[in-house]
Amino acid sequence: MKQVLIKDLYRNTESFIDKKVELSGWIRTIRDSKTFGFIELNDGSFFKSVQIVFDDKLENYKDIAKLPISSSVKVEGDFIHTPQAKQPFEIKATVIAIEGTSNVDYPLQKKRHTFEYLRTIAHLRPRTNTFSAVFRVRSIAAYAMHKFFNEKGFVYVHSPIITGSDTEGAGEMFRVTSLDLNKLPKNEEGKTDDTKDFFGKETNLTVSGQLSAESFALAFRNVYTFGPTFRAENSNTARHAAEFWMIEPEVAFAELPDIMDLAEEMVKYVIGYVLEQAPEEMDFFNSFVEKGLLDRLNNAYTADFGRVTYTEAIELLKKSGENFAYPVEWGLDLQTEHERYLCEKVYQKPVFVTDYPKEIKAFYMRLNEDDKTVAATDLLVPGIGELIGGSQREEREEVLAAKIKELGMNEEDYWWYLELRKYGGTKHSGYGLGFERLIMYLTGMTNIRDVIPFPRTPGNADF
Amino acid sequence: MKQVLIKDLYRNTESFIDKKVELSGWIRTIRDSKTFGFIELNDGSFFKSVQIVFDDKLENYKDIAKLPISSSVKVEGDFIHTPQAKQPFEIKATVIAIEGTSNVDYPLQKKRHTFEYLRTIAHLRPRTNTFSAVFRVRSIAAYAMHKFFNEKGFVYVHSPIITGSDTEGAGEMFRVTSLDLNKLPKNEEGKTDDTKDFFGKETNLTVSGQLSAESFALAFRNVYTFGPTFRAENSNTARHAAEFWMIEPEVAFAELPDIMDLAEEMVKYVIGYVLEQAPEEMDFFNSFVEKGLLDRLNNAYTADFGRVTYTEAIELLKKSGENFAYPVEWGLDLQTEHERYLCEKVYQKPVFVTDYPKEIKAFYMRLNEDDKTVAATDLLVPGIGELIGGSQREEREEVLAAKIKELGMNEEDYWWYLELRKYGGTKHSGYGLGFERLIMYLTGMTNIRDVIPFPRTPGNADF
Repeated sequence: MKQVLIKDLYRNTESFIDKKVELSGWIRTIRDSKTFGFIELNDGSFFKSVQIVFDDKLENYKDIAKLPISSSVKVEGDFIHTPQAKQPFEIKATVIAIEGTSNVDYPLQKKRHTFEYLRTIAHLRPRTNTFSAVFRVRSIAAYAMHKFFNEKGFVYVHSPIITGSDTEGAGEMFRVTSLDLNKLPKNEEGKTDDTKDFFGKETNLTVSGQLSAESFALAFRNVYTFGPTFRAENSNTARHAAEFWMIEPEVAFAELPDIMDLAEEMVKYVIGYVLEQAPEEMDFFNSFVEKGLLDRLNNAYTADFGRVTYTEAIELLKKSGENFAYPVEWGLDLQTEHERYLCEKVYQKPVFVTDYPKEIKAFYMRLNEDDKTVAATDLLVPGIGELIGGSQREEREEVLAAKIKELGMNEEDYWWYLELRKYGGTKHSGYGLGFERLIMYLTGMTNIRDVIPFPRTPGNADF
Repeated sequence: MKQVLIKDLYRNTESFIDKKVELSGWIRTIRDSKTFGFIELNDGSFFKSVQIVFDDKLENYKDIAKLPISSSVKVEGDFIHTPQAKQPFEIKATVIAIEGTSNVDYPLQKKRHTFEYLRTIAHLRPRTNTFSAVFRVRSIAAYAMHKFFNEKGFVYVHSPIITGSDTEGAGEMFRVTSLDLNKLPKNEEGKTDDTKDFFGKETNLTVSGQLSAESFALAFRNVYTFGPTFRAENSNTARHAAEFWMIEPEVAFAELPDIMDLAEEMVKYVIGYVLEQAPEEMDFFNSFVEKGLLDRLNNAYTADFGRVTYTEAIELLKKSGENFAYPVEWGLDLQTEHERYLCEKVYQKPVFVTDYPKEIKAFYMRLNEDDKTVAATDLLVPGIGELIGGSQREEREEVLAAKIKELGMNEEDYWWYLELRKYGGTKHSGYGLGFERLIMYLTGMTNIRDVIPFPRTPGNADF
């Protein structure tokens, strides 16, 4: 008999009435009396479990009854429709075969565990309600992202992970090497001879796929990347990880407002898709992780996102009367407290801040007519702060070349990036979305370590 | 006026008849007489270009007429339906605005370039017919993959890129470090003090997400990874890259034949999807890259894949009468020449070889009853050889622990992997597909450097 998934039992309940079914799964709870017992069985296909009723007509009744939780079993039985009961159906087992008997010291006993503790057993935590919900939503959101861009005809680009250049011109990067750190080859100056390394030079882990994406946008018009990026920053906060995934769309012939429209549509699309595809998980988050989550997301889904210039935002902050920890002054970057004040208190919905001072933004952002600001935007969302950062790119070869020189960047690294302006350059714009930030936004989880399967942070690369 | 994409003009031609349109793109070719001219304009949304007709009624006629190829323009004009002509429509321009004037030394002049040369301008090559087709097919195949697994309810897992362990127990790995290679901290033994590194220990780039995927399969039942993997192997062949993307599904409660069925269904799904979504590109490959490509793919799409044991395959090879460069002997691994003989000459279609000698396969593969072979499979396909490698995993804790010990692997690294067997372990199986191999299979391209946007190989991490 072909096995059924518990998801199908819930989604297509009617079609199973009075049928025999076979399924497999793991025991979440088990209790028994002398002659019958109940198993709450979960097979990972669905957030909810199914109740298995078994009795001493099973020849292995006693063995089953004493199975530790998390043991895996194969069940054959009758599907019993119970529309009046709390659970709409249950399975009356005719055969239960033991697949794997768990050990009695299984760490996930039926009690509350702290998220901190669960991080130490990251290989087991997806079996808990919270993490099963988080990682299913993560998967659904990733699919929504691909689906959104595919429907719009965007080409998905796998930008390189190992890179010889530093996109931001400022990031702290991880070195990638095949050299033996205990037998480093030296050059004439007594320094490490990078020419002996695998790629013949120093290479690092990418901090962004943007420059590659720009190259492809000038061939395919609409492209996006979705891949891992890295920061070797020693910041032990709830919002930073050394390894995280980014989505970076890049659009030729687009100006800043065009990609703001795109970003708004994308965020709404993903919210809508996740609410539709994972209602059980989202209800769970709303009840147990962040009260009001669904209201917050529905608000973002239906509202027109706000739009305000940086200069106006500074004025709003100055006259707010709030006692901020960090100073508010034109020319200084916005801190999370400022960002959250703007979207949570002033706008009470997601808001784009645009046209930041050129000094606090990256070299590739397009200089505005005022010569003081660049065509950049950050999308600020309640509960998170910055979710997206984007800009129109500097397409004027001479302006870009001057900027690279002015910042003392290594011009040789950017020969090809400059050539994109020389050969068929055009207006183009794009943005980056930190995928983990989005998952935190969608689930209400507050620590980035709890939305990544196996997080990498300073001092931690376990599993 | 909202801009239209050239893809829409081709796919929904009827709806544009007698309409005014606005579009942007890059000039592929341009020719003119004194009073009128033709531009072949491509906007990246579609494999084909559109013909723009312009004449000296344009006030900037002379400027337009002398634009170098690859210049970008915005065109407004009338859509002229020409069903009798070679091209089913053209645009009669009323306005042409210059977006970006290209330089006359644009490297992609209208002549054939070698793939070797085009690798040196990887930032421009997606603008050529061949690479526009390759990278669009790559994008479509990636989407097909996500769509396939999504439809089957698989959870997409982002397995970690930076890792403290070595899945295969044998790979040559890249070291990841935040230490300054010119100021390495030393421990008491005078060696590099890895505890001072970012993660407090030595870390490397992953060679596979499988172990992580197993952890998640034992929570979600059906999962897959799709992410970059790395090999620091110094092999300069047409089939190896230091950085490539892998798809690794992992299925709980599945035995070897189950995942062979899954792999066969997946390969057919992707072939079908690409043929349907990229007919122009696939025709191009069939005409200009590999004659017979479409026959080969249609054959794979319709045939039942062959299935043969390694032991039988060795017999077939021995009695083949072929003069192989490498020896054929039970216990030796199959070489590409053997693999291709089996699928191209014997079966003339994709074939799964199963049950390899345990000595030549990885530690995690399940030992068969015969104590000599493991429940492993490779899928061999014409033109490529090995496309997929998979196995049933060793779920018996004591057998697995003994194997890890026997191979002298670092047991401490695998505590959590062993715990997956201790707590609710169950039969499970999975496989890995090298995504670039699949793209080579789908396009007929023969060098892996030509199916990766910016390839990383020994001595090369340009762009």
